Amino acid sequence: MAGCITLLTDFGLQDVYVGVMKGVVLQINPTASLIDLTHQIPPQDILAARFQLLNAYPYFPDGTVHLVVVDPGVGSSRRAIALQTQRGFLVAPDNGVLSGVIADYATELIAAVELDNSCYWRTSQPSHTFHGRDIFAPAAAYLSQGIALENLGTAIALDSLQLRSLPNYQQTETGYQGVIQAIDQFGNLITNLPGKLVESTRSWTVIVGDRTLAGQSTYAAVEPGEFVALVGSHGWLEIAVNGGSAASDLNRSVGDSVSMLLT
Amino acid sequence: MAGCITLLTDFGLQDVYVGVMKGVVLQINPTASLIDLTHQIPPQDILAARFQLLNAYPYFPDGTVHLVVVDPGVGSSRRAIALQTQRGFLVAPDNGVLSGVIADYATELIAAVELDNSCYWRTSQPSHTFHGRDIFAPAAAYLSQGIALENLGTAIALDSLQLRSLPNYQQTETGYQGVIQAIDQFGNLITNLPGKLVESTRSWTVIVGDRTLAGQSTYAAVEPGEFVALVGSHGWLEIAVNGGSAASDLNRSVGDSVSMLLT
Amino acid sequence: MAGCITLLTDFGLQDVYVGVMKGVVLQINPTASLIDLTHQIPPQDILAARFQLLNAYPYFPDGTVHLVVVDPGVGSSRRAIALQTQRGFLVAPDNGVLSGVIADYATELIAAVELDNSCYWRTSQPSHTFHGRDIFAPAAAYLSQGIALENLGTAIALDSLQLRSLPNYQQTETGYQGVIQAIDQFGNLITNLPGKLVESTRSWTVIVGDRTLAGQSTYAAVEPGEFVALVGSHGWLEIAVNGGSAASDLNRSVGDSVSMLLT
Repeated sequence: MAGCITLLTDFGLQDVYVGVMKGVVLQINPTASLIDLTHQIPPQDILAARFQLLNAYPYFPDGTVHLVVVDPGVGSSRRAIALQTQRGFLVAPDNGVLSGVIADYATELIAAVELDNSCYWRTSQPSHTFHGRDIFAPAAAYLSQGIALENLGTAIALDSLQLRSLPNYQQTETGYQGVIQAIDQFGNLITNLPGKLVESTRSWTVIVGDRTLAGQSTYAAVEPGEFVALVGSHGWLEIAVNGGSAASDLNRSVGDSVSMLLT
Repeated sequence: MAGCITLLTDFGLQDVYVGVMKGVVLQINPTASLIDLTHQIPPQDILAARFQLLNAYPYFPDGTVHLVVVDPGVGSSRRAIALQTQRGFLVAPDNGVLSGVIADYATELIAAVELDNSCYWRTSQPSHTFHGRDIFAPAAAYLSQGIALENLGTAIALDSLQLRSLPNYQQTETGYQGVIQAIDQFGNLITNLPGKLVESTRSWTVIVGDRTLAGQSTYAAVEPGEFVALVGSHGWLEIAVNGGSAASDLNRSVGDSVSMLLT
Repeated sequence: MAGCITLLTDFGLQDVYVGVMKGVVLQINPTASLIDLTHQIPPQDILAARFQLLNAYPYFPDGTVHLVVVDPGVGSSRRAIALQTQRGFLVAPDNGVLSGVIADYATELIAAVELDNSCYWRTSQPSHTFHGRDIFAPAAAYLSQGIALENLGTAIALDSLQLRSLPNYQQTETGYQGVIQAIDQFGNLITNLPGKLVESTRSWTVIVGDRTLAGQSTYAAVEPGEFVALVGSHGWLEIAVNGGSAASDLNRSVGDSVSMLLT
C-alpha cells in the first residue's frame, strides 16, 4: 500500500538521522512515499514545529501520515503518541507539536493512542535518545500500511494531549494587536493575526516598528524594494518587501509586536 | 501513472513551501515520483534558475515534468505557462527561467499554453502570493498523469515566451573573452565559455585575475591545492582547485571576466 | 523492480548535481525509490563519509543499493567499485569511504567488482569530472533492477579494497582514551569509544576538556542546560547538553581527546 508519509524534524540535513528514519520506514513498508516537510526546525523549538506542521497539514492526500520528531524530552516520561483525524494520522511526542492542528481542526479528531505496544517498535529495547528511529518511524510505517491505530498502543483521551498555544492577539479600539510568529526564507514577517480579520474590510493598515503600511493583496502591488502588508499564502497577515527581505530592512524578530488598524 | 516531476525553486528548505507543493501534486497524482533539483536558488534570481534548470534538463526520463517556481512577479500580470518539448514538459512563470532550455533545445519545442483554465487550478480563487501551490503544482501533476497540454489553458506562440540571455562571450584575436556565470558548491568557477571552443584544440590557456592556467582534462591533472582549468561536467570551461575552492583562493565572483587563449 | 537506492555525497544542495544523478537513475530504473542520506559531507572528506555511511547502513531494507560519491580522485587512476554484501550493494570510488562498513560487517561481504564495463556506463566517454553521473549512478540503477554484480565489471579481491581507519582508542590503567570523531547537528560530541565498553559497567565517567561527567542513559537524566555523557543512538559514547550544544559550550572540535574512566 503506497501510503504517503511526511517528515518534520529538527535533525537538519548534515547527519543521517532523517535517512535512518526513512530506512526504518522502508524496511516495514517498502512502497511508502516519503515527503520532507522540513528538517530545519531550530533545535527543540516546539512552537516552530507547531507552526510549520499547521501550514502543511491541509495540503496532503487523505490517509497521509505526518511524522513529527522535535523531541526535547526523549528518554523522559513524555508520551509517544499517534493521533487519527478525518484526514489521516499524526505521529509525534506528546509535547505540543501537534497543538496547532488539534486547535484548528478540532472537529476532525477521531482518536489517539500512546505508542506503548512494543510489538510495533523497531526493537523491544529502544534507544534512550532516538525514538524517531525506534518508535515513531515504525508507527508511521505501520499506519501507512493500514494497521489500525488501536493496535499501536493504549487509547488516551483527546483532551489529555499536551497543548502549546500561540501568543493571543488582542482586539483594540481601532483594530488588533499581535506579534510576529515566524519569519520565512524570504524575510517575510508572518504575524499571528489571521487574514479573516480583514476579509470584510475595504481598507486596513499595519504598523510595524516605525512604519505604517497600507494593506494590499499582492507583493507586486508595490514597487520593487517597497514594503507591503498583505494576507500571505498560509492565511496570516504578513509584512514583506517586494523582491527583498522585510526582516533585514526592518530589523524585526519573532515576538515583536505588530498593530493592524481597520480604516 | 508514475510520472516523474522535478522541482526547482528559491523557497529554501526551512519552510514547508516545497512540501506543500508536493502534497498538492500527490493529492492529484498519488504515484508521482518527486525529485528535487534545488530549492536554494537565491531569492528571485531568474538567471541562476535558468542556469541550474539547463544543467539538469537533459538527464531525466522522457515525459518528465519540470516544475520551476522562481517567481518575483507572482500576483502581477506575468503569465503562468506550460511548455511541451520532445522530452517532456516545463511548468513555470513566463519570466525567462525556461530560456536556457528554450535556446539550447529550440528544435525540440512543441507547444505552449498559458495556464488560464481554472478547472485545473487547486482552487478557483488562487492565492495572490503562492501560485506554486495553487496553479503550477496542479498543472505539473495533471501533465504527469497524461492530461494533454491543451486542456490546461490557451495556446500561446512559442516566440512570445520571455527570454533572458546570458552575457555573450566575445571572440578576440587570440581566443575568447567571457565571464564567470556561476560558482558551485566546491567553489569551482563556471564560465559562460562553452567547452566546444576547445574541442579541436591541442592546447589552451585560461586567464583569470592574475593567474594564467594551462587547460587540462581532469582535476587530478594537477597536484592537490593547485589551480586547474578544464571543461566541467556541464560542458562549460571552469576554473577549479584540486581539493580546494577556486572561488575563495582567487576571490572571484559571478560576472567577473575570464579570457581563454588558443595556443 | 522498485529497489531502494540511497545517496551520500559532498555535492551540497545548492547545485543540481544530486538531481542529475537521480535523473540518470530514473532513466534506467523509473521505479527506483531514492533516499538521501546526506549531501553535506565536507568537500572531499572521506572519513566523514565513512562515518555517516556506517551510521545509516544497518537501517535499510535488504537489497538496498548505497550510492556514495565523495570522490577527490575523480579522473585519476582510483578505481570505481561496487561491493555486494548480505544486505545489498555499495557503489563508490575505491578510496576508503566504504571502509567503516567493510570493517564492521566483514563477515557479510560477498564480492566486489571494478566498474570497468562501459556497457553499463551512461556513455562510453564519461566525463573526467563527474563519475557520479556517468559511472556510479548507472551502476546503482542497474543493481537496483536486479542486474548481477559480475556484469558490471572485473572481479577484484575483497582484500584489495582501500581502507581508511578511524584513530584507534587506547586502553589505559583506569579506562579508555579516545577522540571526538564527529559533531552532529545538535552539537553533540560523538567519540570513537564504542558503547559496548560501558555495557557491563555499573558506573563510568567521561573527561572532556576541564569537565568530568558521570555517565547517564538519557539526555533528560540531567537538567536543561547541563552536560551529559551517554551512549548515543549510533552506539558511540557521546557528550551532549540537554537542550543545548556541547560543541559550543565546550569549544571542542573533531580530533580532540576524550577519556573514559570505569568507576
